Amino acid sequence: MMWYQTAITEQCGIQFPIIQAGMAGSTTPELVANVTEAGGLGTIGAGYMTPEKLEQEILQVKQLTSKPFAVNLFVPEAFTYTDEAVNTMNDHLQSYREALSLETPTAGKHDSEVFQQVIDIVIKHQVAVCTFTFGVPLVDIVSKLHDAGVIVVGSATTVAEAQEVEHVGMDAVVAQGSEAGGHRAAFQQDGATSLVGTMALIPQMVDHVSIPVIAAGGIMDGRGWIASHMLGAAGVQLGTAFLTTRESASKPVHRQAILNSTETDTVVTKVLSGKAARGIRNALIDDLESVHDKVLPYPIQNDLTKQLRATAAKENNAQWTHIWSGQGGRLARDTDAQTLIKSLLKEAQEQVDRLN
Amino acid sequence: MMWYQTAITEQCGIQFPIIQAGMAGSTTPELVANVTEAGGLGTIGAGYMTPEKLEQEILQVKQLTSKPFAVNLFVPEAFTYTDEAVNTMNDHLQSYREALSLETPTAGKHDSEVFQQVIDIVIKHQVAVCTFTFGVPLVDIVSKLHDAGVIVVGSATTVAEAQEVEHVGMDAVVAQGSEAGGHRAAFQQDGATSLVGTMALIPQMVDHVSIPVIAAGGIMDGRGWIASHMLGAAGVQLGTAFLTTRESASKPVHRQAILNSTETDTVVTKVLSGKAARGIRNALIDDLESVHDKVLPYPIQNDLTKQLRATAAKENNAQWTHIWSGQGGRLARDTDAQTLIKSLLKEAQEQVDRLN
Repeated sequence: MMWYQTAITEQCGIQFPIIQAGMAGSTTPELVANVTEAGGLGTIGAGYMTPEKLEQEILQVKQLTSKPFAVNLFVPEAFTYTDEAVNTMNDHLQSYREALSLETPTAGKHDSEVFQQVIDIVIKHQVAVCTFTFGVPLVDIVSKLHDAGVIVVGSATTVAEAQEVEHVGMDAVVAQGSEAGGHRAAFQQDGATSLVGTMALIPQMVDHVSIPVIAAGGIMDGRGWIASHMLGAAGVQLGTAFLTTRESASKPVHRQAILNSTETDTVVTKVLSGKAARGIRNALIDDLESVHDKVLPYPIQNDLTKQLRATAAKENNAQWTHIWSGQGGRLARDTDAQTLIKSLLKEAQEQVDRLN
Repeated sequence: MMWYQTAITEQCGIQFPIIQAGMAGSTTPELVANVTEAGGLGTIGAGYMTPEKLEQEILQVKQLTSKPFAVNLFVPEAFTYTDEAVNTMNDHLQSYREALSLETPTAGKHDSEVFQQVIDIVIKHQVAVCTFTFGVPLVDIVSKLHDAGVIVVGSATTVAEAQEVEHVGMDAVVAQGSEAGGHRAAFQQDGATSLVGTMALIPQMVDHVSIPVIAAGGIMDGRGWIASHMLGAAGVQLGTAFLTTRESASKPVHRQAILNSTETDTVVTKVLSGKAARGIRNALIDDLESVHDKVLPYPIQNDLTKQLRATAAKENNAQWTHIWSGQGGRLARDTDAQTLIKSLLKEAQEQVDRLN
């Protein structure tokens, strides 16, 4: 048995325990399929998808690969807001919209039935693995997925969150260290305060749950993979490293900013979406941090800024969009998914061989 | 050659590339000697020592071991303050002092000649290794140490800082990840903003300097050691893990708080000493954070709070002292230095053996 054959490769039926993170808005069927065909586990980032869109994506991935892949979903959370607060934030954002000729958005609907519907789509198409972020689903949803033969994976930023993931019966847990790019998976504590580095988080989580732990946060190459393995992780999940592959849906301005970044360029902030997330600091973050008490909770703040950010990205404006990225910017590569996975294996094996 | 024989074991003339961090105020000659006798590199935490005290400690260590050990020094920094600001902070701290029957302190002298004098003591006694924190010494100090046969090691929290350490001619660099307990070694950026996780920091630093990199931050057991080795580090430096050994000078209240802590209990704050440091959050930190704009720069804030913190610790009051600790609290052990080093080797070797 090779060192990289773990509980995760066995559970998920994959060759290498390398998971492409479910980066909502940045995955494509091609990315998911290419990761999967290369021996890893591709993930449809379905966090913001309608049931119809998810079904379409699943069918597209299935046309490209017959191997197991994953879908990532966001667990809905309770939130409250006032129309007055929405108006105040919209007023603040008005000058950006005028510059980009955008209309004023309203808070979205966020129907909790949609969550049930996307679960049903996952079951209907017998997706191999369903991963969850921002919380744990109800036990009966986990059971329903299990009954349909779906492997269920949670996300945690602390030991206590991982214990909750295990408690509801999930099969594995992604341990998100503080280095990770994009949204914090935190659901018990405030996302900004549960920033535990991957090196410290993995062994503590491994010691306190009995399900396999998948390391995430700052892992960009084969050295990070084998290091995580040594800490006791049964696999790794990489986001930023896949974001700069040619198959990702990230905009050129986003991938170029990551490729040009260093380890100190990112910040964890709630101001773009209402939920703590790590990205490269820019003018929009700095401006909204100056009025941070006016920022609405997730997902309402996201509703109010998403069109602005998307338009700015299309117009190649790195200062007014989100540049989600982890702390491993100097290790980012302009490559494709298959080459990246081959490199990860080669680099990890080189470290293993160095021991003998 | 065993996997743990690296550029660091060769440079320093030690068996294992395990460095006990120079925790100012918490090392004892016995700790330094026992780490060294067990095959690691013990370090006298001389950051706050007078030349006389350092000389005494060096002689005590030499009575206990003939093997190579290290001295850690703080590089003096420029700072300014006003008497009015000192009075304002002293007023704020008055109620604590009354409760503990302490007199009001003044700002210390901080004579920069002391730094030159402790360097001369290191040279006079031919200490094997001299490590520096809070900056890089002048090139002629590095040369003077080199001429005396002393190995010179710097500390860095970012790639750019590591490049500065290399530039002045130091022989190796400690990469301090965000998980690390105690003071941030940062000297280019503000300590609180240069918080890069160890998993992300090590490979990026290894790629950008040619001197050996020593990993620090969140490393508490053999898993962390071998993981750091896989990331390309030539050795590891552990602080918190040695702080709870019986030989350390840490107070019972301090070590007990660490032994009872979890990965989410710490915070990085400037309020206790004027310089960013990671410790377990308590009432004193919360109170001073509420007046954080009144906090003086290091080392003046340290002068104003140190007696209060020391007295509180003696009186077993965990809420009014500093509980420096990294993010690996759940992995802390109530043990002794020799047992800890033996355990590190056993645990790391178990991970190596698992690969075959």
